[in-house]
Amino acid sequence: MRNIDCKNIKINDGFWKIKQDMVNNITLKSVYERFKETHRFDALDCTWKEGDPDLPHVFWDSDIAKWIESVGYNAFAYDNDELIKIVDESVEKIIKNRDENGYFNSHFLVTGERFTVRNEHELYCAGHLMEAAVAYYKATGKRALLDVMCKYADYIEKIFIKEQSAEFMTPGHPEIELALVKLYEVTGEKRYLEMSKFFIDNHGANDKDKELYPGCHLLYNQDEKPIRERDTVDGHCVRALYLLAGAADIAYLYNDKELFEATERCFENVVNKRMYITGATGSTCHGESFTIDYDLPNRDAYAETCAAISLAFFANRMIRLNADSKYADAVEKVMYNGALSGISVDGKGFFYENPLEIDVDFNNVHPCTDGGRRYPITQRKEVFDCSCCPPNVTRFIAGIGEYMYLYNVDTLFINQYIASETQTDNLKITQETQYPSRGEVKITLENNIKKYIALRIPGWCNDFSVNKEYTLKKGYAYVEVEKDDEIIINFNMPVRFVSANKKVHTNSGRVAIMRGPVVYCLEGVDNGKDLTALRVDIKGKTQVAEGEFIVPDIIAEGFKETENDNLYFDATDEYIETSLKFIPYYAYANRGETDMLVWVLKK
Amino acid sequence: MRNIDCKNIKINDGFWKIKQDMVNNITLKSVYERFKETHRFDALDCTWKEGDPDLPHVFWDSDIAKWIESVGYNAFAYDNDELIKIVDESVEKIIKNRDENGYFNSHFLVTGERFTVRNEHELYCAGHLMEAAVAYYKATGKRALLDVMCKYADYIEKIFIKEQSAEFMTPGHPEIELALVKLYEVTGEKRYLEMSKFFIDNHGANDKDKELYPGCHLLYNQDEKPIRERDTVDGHCVRALYLLAGAADIAYLYNDKELFEATERCFENVVNKRMYITGATGSTCHGESFTIDYDLPNRDAYAETCAAISLAFFANRMIRLNADSKYADAVEKVMYNGALSGISVDGKGFFYENPLEIDVDFNNVHPCTDGGRRYPITQRKEVFDCSCCPPNVTRFIAGIGEYMYLYNVDTLFINQYIASETQTDNLKITQETQYPSRGEVKITLENNIKKYIALRIPGWCNDFSVNKEYTLKKGYAYVEVEKDDEIIINFNMPVRFVSANKKVHTNSGRVAIMRGPVVYCLEGVDNGKDLTALRVDIKGKTQVAEGEFIVPDIIAEGFKETENDNLYFDATDEYIETSLKFIPYYAYANRGETDMLVWVLKK
Repeated sequence: MRNIDCKNIKINDGFWKIKQDMVNNITLKSVYERFKETHRFDALDCTWKEGDPDLPHVFWDSDIAKWIESVGYNAFAYDNDELIKIVDESVEKIIKNRDENGYFNSHFLVTGERFTVRNEHELYCAGHLMEAAVAYYKATGKRALLDVMCKYADYIEKIFIKEQSAEFMTPGHPEIELALVKLYEVTGEKRYLEMSKFFIDNHGANDKDKELYPGCHLLYNQDEKPIRERDTVDGHCVRALYLLAGAADIAYLYNDKELFEATERCFENVVNKRMYITGATGSTCHGESFTIDYDLPNRDAYAETCAAISLAFFANRMIRLNADSKYADAVEKVMYNGALSGISVDGKGFFYENPLEIDVDFNNVHPCTDGGRRYPITQRKEVFDCSCCPPNVTRFIAGIGEYMYLYNVDTLFINQYIASETQTDNLKITQETQYPSRGEVKITLENNIKKYIALRIPGWCNDFSVNKEYTLKKGYAYVEVEKDDEIIINFNMPVRFVSANKKVHTNSGRVAIMRGPVVYCLEGVDNGKDLTALRVDIKGKTQVAEGEFIVPDIIAEGFKETENDNLYFDATDEYIETSLKFIPYYAYANRGETDMLVWVLKK
Repeated sequence: MRNIDCKNIKINDGFWKIKQDMVNNITLKSVYERFKETHRFDALDCTWKEGDPDLPHVFWDSDIAKWIESVGYNAFAYDNDELIKIVDESVEKIIKNRDENGYFNSHFLVTGERFTVRNEHELYCAGHLMEAAVAYYKATGKRALLDVMCKYADYIEKIFIKEQSAEFMTPGHPEIELALVKLYEVTGEKRYLEMSKFFIDNHGANDKDKELYPGCHLLYNQDEKPIRERDTVDGHCVRALYLLAGAADIAYLYNDKELFEATERCFENVVNKRMYITGATGSTCHGESFTIDYDLPNRDAYAETCAAISLAFFANRMIRLNADSKYADAVEKVMYNGALSGISVDGKGFFYENPLEIDVDFNNVHPCTDGGRRYPITQRKEVFDCSCCPPNVTRFIAGIGEYMYLYNVDTLFINQYIASETQTDNLKITQETQYPSRGEVKITLENNIKKYIALRIPGWCNDFSVNKEYTLKKGYAYVEVEKDDEIIINFNMPVRFVSANKKVHTNSGRVAIMRGPVVYCLEGVDNGKDLTALRVDIKGKTQVAEGEFIVPDIIAEGFKETENDNLYFDATDEYIETSLKFIPYYAYANRGETDMLVWVLKK
């Protein structure tokens, strides 16, 4: 089972074309400028010394790396010489300043001893630079950064595996595991795959790391137990899901059933018990972590943009192990909701946290935030001190093609429906669609050599038609196809009212509004104050109306409370009819500071 | 307008007789033993020295003082020589160990310099000892402690007012203000009243205190603005409400309209915008404080037992300024709900925090509590390190008679309906009632010299009858009465479903169940898991059924969700009929650790 590399995929219309244009025209430059202003790019010069301002932060290299990776994906579809020039200059600096072993880290080269503090993101930065190198090489054919990172990987192998001379055994923040697999896939060097397996096998399974990080950090750093023994996802969400993404790769490439079963248990746990309806995870800002099953608060959700994206990484890798549509469903949830809300519609602003409810008055109140309850910010920012999310959502959009196709000997799997033209050595695939605004998809195959095309039937869809005979298996419609063929699939896309499990106490009596994969929300700017008191009629009529945010808005019938100024008063069952306007959740907070609500009282 | 002193009131039947018997038979001894075990009583010996364990805490004297005060109130109705003996021994220790100025503080006598650290509860402890002295003197006629505290008060006057030589001007934790008024009332020494006024006037109105506690402590310590300028209650709830109780006394005794208006604005703010339906206050554990209007979360309510009681202190003092039933309504809310939940039905266990929802699985989960979201404990404890609440609820119950009667030249106000016999110099009042289990009250007057009796019509009551003609004014039914008379009032007491203002977002779509002044709750032990998903039919039938906790239980018609194991699924409007059993809120958590919910979804 292999991926069709997204360098072969040209997204040429519709939803993702708009988003990729935005990334090419606005986001990449804006993120670069903010990173430049905040001295992240200067850090590559490695000239900082004691007493200077702006000590390069331990994770700045990863910010640069994700930006370079984004430029790589962007270069598959766009000519943007200005960005390429910046990358080439940055790579030159890295080459100039790395040491004789190939080691590069803009923090540790100018400060403390390398490989001594496990939690300081050293291997994490290395991993991101590897991913950047692979993407940039694929896009441009330029090997310089790839060669740098291979040499660095060799050095890491020497220190961590051959000599075991580092102060720790596995990274505090996973990332290098999945990056080494990419390095293996592009170079064919099995050593890199074995290194990845080494980290995967040893995470949570060695005393060295546990002794360094006692107490609650065990869970945070993914050290409480070996991956193979896990039944639940715990601790820091991004760490957990990056690690599981790497583990899924290793399970597949080593045909490791035990590891597959563990990743499968973890996948089931996250999507069935610990995931927001937006594909986001992270129920608390404390440790940026998972908590317990069904603990999914809305207003103080952490729901980090990076965590949503990392679920897509993990889920997409699981498909190779088990061709079940549930994984691509999770990817889709992230794509249209929990990741995309991380970026503003103008392409410049970012959310780190993506709550499912905003109460402006309450969120901003001093006594609550000052050492008290902590709520997410209500407006996007262009850069953060810890700015992992902006380049992460950038690379995610630029590389969205990665999630579209997989194939094995006889079947081509279509996992995501995106208007595009894909040309591999022989096969040409064209998708014509306005998905997810509309449910029709026309797929044209030319020079096809596969016997079947497997069309994912989204989990949200109960009603669809295909212009061919098909067999349903694990959520895919398998259609026998010719060398040249045309498949038309039509997903009926009604407005849906979705309930949460009764164990999710925050959502009791409430419904979320979805259409296709898109989760909707109410905003104060459209619906006034006290959104929590509005009720939507789940048996009422809904209208799909043109909106400002690509996919349509939804107008639903609802009710509001009769006026009463008292704090407490005798309950009535009288309501006033009202109309509720829902916009796509991913577009919240783009029209000034206003309240927002995903889970709405049902009537 | 004067109080009928509760030493003249003998509670002889019904609800409060049961609670006072419990205090006499169980609670006073149990609290004493826990305080003894935790070395609080030993601290009175003032023998601690550097290197010893168990340094007397700065507020231990207040724990002892509230316990002594409770013994005083208890002695109005019960002979309990064992307790009296303990008090007398304690007083002897205080006399022995106070210094030549009359100063006594078991912490500062053995440690640092006195009157230097404003927040260290030094004047707070003094205030509580004054309250204890007054109660004990009234109960026993023994002047020893009263004399001690007068001398101490004189010394405080010298240091704080005459010399102004302390490092601060007003106490960080108010309490002495209301205590000095009591000292004035029992001794007739106007100096004590003037001292109280001095603190009231200077709180938040002097630079000395503000400089000592900059930043957010201004609000916490009640320093942000003078009381006269306040429109809202802010900061630490107990501090705010103790201070306002003192301010109400001063406003009344000095006939100070400006101060009355400020206390009135604060009263309106708290009861109309910042008070739980239980009479509790404190929306966050951080700073044990008020937050903003309508921010009343249930699961992470702070709702400290002491804060509920302090609202009763404040409200009861407001009646003298303005004979409106709303104040006694607030007292009643506290009496039957937010204060009483602070003590277990066996009289030994206490809650510091009294949330309106408990989710055992969530509240106890490690990642939430360990540096993360903080929820209240789910089972009462016999003592706390900071054990202010146990003796506070003890003195509140023992002294409940304080809240019953006020009188002026021509009118006797009946504020609380409690089965009792009250004998003043001439008048004898008998109340026969099973209130709040039943709504009938028979009031017999003998040797009455007042022209009117003013019967409070509780705010919860829309339907009542009196066996005499009456005139309604500010929530009181004024009845003209004879020298010997019998008034029968009957409050209809149906089950009520109560909504919260739509600005209280936590309670949207939910109702609380009340009968009379008693707020009810669901418990998991009766109604299973996932209480938040249950719905009560506000148009359904209710049954008032005999229960375990003095007042009846309520059985209501309701609905539960159809079973669905998925995390998210298409909403339906199908429910399964079910019966819901409500118990009085004050009795929650008396049958093992179980979920609890006040605000229930309405159908």
